[in-house]
Amino acid sequence: MYRPQIKVLDCTIRDGGLMNDWRFDKSLVKDLFSGLAKAGVDYVELGYRADKKQFSTKDNGPWRFCDEEDLREVAFECDTKVSIMCDVDRTDYNAFLPAKDSLVKLVRVACYVPDIDKAIHLGNHVKSMGYEVSVNIMAVSHALEPDLDEALDQLAETNFEMVYIVDSFGYLYSEQIHYLANKYKSKLPGKEIGIHCHNNQQLAFANTVEAIIKGMNYLDASIYGIGRAAGNCPLELLLGFLKNPKFDVRPVFDLIEKYFIDLKEKLRWGYEIPYAITGILNKHPRAAMAFMKGVHGRTFSEFYEEMLNVDDL
Amino acid sequence: MYRPQIKVLDCTIRDGGLMNDWRFDKSLVKDLFSGLAKAGVDYVELGYRADKKQFSTKDNGPWRFCDEEDLREVAFECDTKVSIMCDVDRTDYNAFLPAKDSLVKLVRVACYVPDIDKAIHLGNHVKSMGYEVSVNIMAVSHALEPDLDEALDQLAETNFEMVYIVDSFGYLYSEQIHYLANKYKSKLPGKEIGIHCHNNQQLAFANTVEAIIKGMNYLDASIYGIGRAAGNCPLELLLGFLKNPKFDVRPVFDLIEKYFIDLKEKLRWGYEIPYAITGILNKHPRAAMAFMKGVHGRTFSEFYEEMLNVDDL
Repeated sequence: MYRPQIKVLDCTIRDGGLMNDWRFDKSLVKDLFSGLAKAGVDYVELGYRADKKQFSTKDNGPWRFCDEEDLREVAFECDTKVSIMCDVDRTDYNAFLPAKDSLVKLVRVACYVPDIDKAIHLGNHVKSMGYEVSVNIMAVSHALEPDLDEALDQLAETNFEMVYIVDSFGYLYSEQIHYLANKYKSKLPGKEIGIHCHNNQQLAFANTVEAIIKGMNYLDASIYGIGRAAGNCPLELLLGFLKNPKFDVRPVFDLIEKYFIDLKEKLRWGYEIPYAITGILNKHPRAAMAFMKGVHGRTFSEFYEEMLNVDDL
Repeated sequence: MYRPQIKVLDCTIRDGGLMNDWRFDKSLVKDLFSGLAKAGVDYVELGYRADKKQFSTKDNGPWRFCDEEDLREVAFECDTKVSIMCDVDRTDYNAFLPAKDSLVKLVRVACYVPDIDKAIHLGNHVKSMGYEVSVNIMAVSHALEPDLDEALDQLAETNFEMVYIVDSFGYLYSEQIHYLANKYKSKLPGKEIGIHCHNNQQLAFANTVEAIIKGMNYLDASIYGIGRAAGNCPLELLLGFLKNPKFDVRPVFDLIEKYFIDLKEKLRWGYEIPYAITGILNKHPRAAMAFMKGVHGRTFSEFYEEMLNVDDL
């Protein structure tokens, strides 16, 4: 679908980092950035900017912090912009240079619906320093309708550029994407709406296509679908679908061949029955990730039963 | 989605057999049939009934032929019906008992659009012996529109129960499924429409859900998505989505755990870049299957380039 307004954001390092504590080699990240620039990807999200008072640099690789000097070793100024993500309550407000002195162009603030006031506060701070700002409302499949409505109404009053629908649990299917797209569009006139999907039910690419059909222009994807647990929308499928001639999928195939086939063997993101179960049941994947790591003391059916009976967020 | 008319057909052995020459152990097939009966699956397709004059029983396991005595070793009369598939030009018309003497209830005739006359001829023969009959029009993403229209008009004149949309190459996405669903429904009043998807672009489950939304009631799926190349719609996801209380996904999880995790390691169906490439480009997967089997003399990008320039069916 050729719609020049469409922007693709690659979140390989940021979301994939949830599987290896952001310990990607700089040589890989450097190859990735230049490959994605060749592929015509609009934004590359190179990690989080987490508060070093809360997270140790010993337990986490550099892409959990995205220091400017680390970013400059792997990325450069070009049409492909660098994005970073910040979680509310986990961010040091003093960790941002003025945008004109930073390689970063976009800061995405991640929050749950109940934290929307904090997200707006952090977003305003970052905006005042000159960055593009997105607010990514996570776990929207757990949001209470009136709370989500109020959050969107508040976001409508901001000068942030984008608001994202985030299906953190890989629960949603097309009709629900359509419903949320209509809601976000009507509540947020003048803002761009984005979509970030998880692949627990093999619906991440499909739901991203539904978002395109509904007029959403900001699309998250990751190389070979890397990301927490079941992972994300595979970038190679998204670029294969988009018909804008500025995109070229070949550099993504090259990166997969060079790095991501082996990484997948090691990190094991992607479709697995425990992730499918938490997706089907609209649950956080953490229990499924524990199941995948542990000796299988339980069967899939026992895990399913347990998840049916658990009431978590 | 609770719609009692919905029927689920498991094609694990029939389509999965394309990956191992139908050499599934009888103990597995027996467990599978009774597990799927417990799961509430409506039809289990246990294989092809191929012509033994054309295909050797030495080179192919029993489920390429589905002799009645083999079927009776693994299946039994119950609410879950046995289905078999027949290809036009590869079927011995004398290989069918009268339906009342057979364990088989449904015969599905597979053909490409240009073979529709042969399919109707074979379907009429099978129908006259008392079976339910479906015609499965394969590779619909390569069909010429007027030829497909004429095929459907001819099928409308038959007394077959079902006609299937088959996305053999895993090329279609939601809007195309909607388009075909509208066409099949308007051309085939009174018949049930079915859907059989391939998962090259991780859209098999998503497209099956779109088919449900469009009122199609016959849904193909396979355990853990087993099937040729990228495989099919995973049965466990489909049963997780359907809300009809007659379905129970647990026996499917048990079968996956007992057999299909190991089988997938061995047979390697599922999402792979070469299959994604043929799906994106609307090509038969045979070149991708050769790529997967061979020593990788070529890179993914070279394979993509080659597929861009090839004009095959």
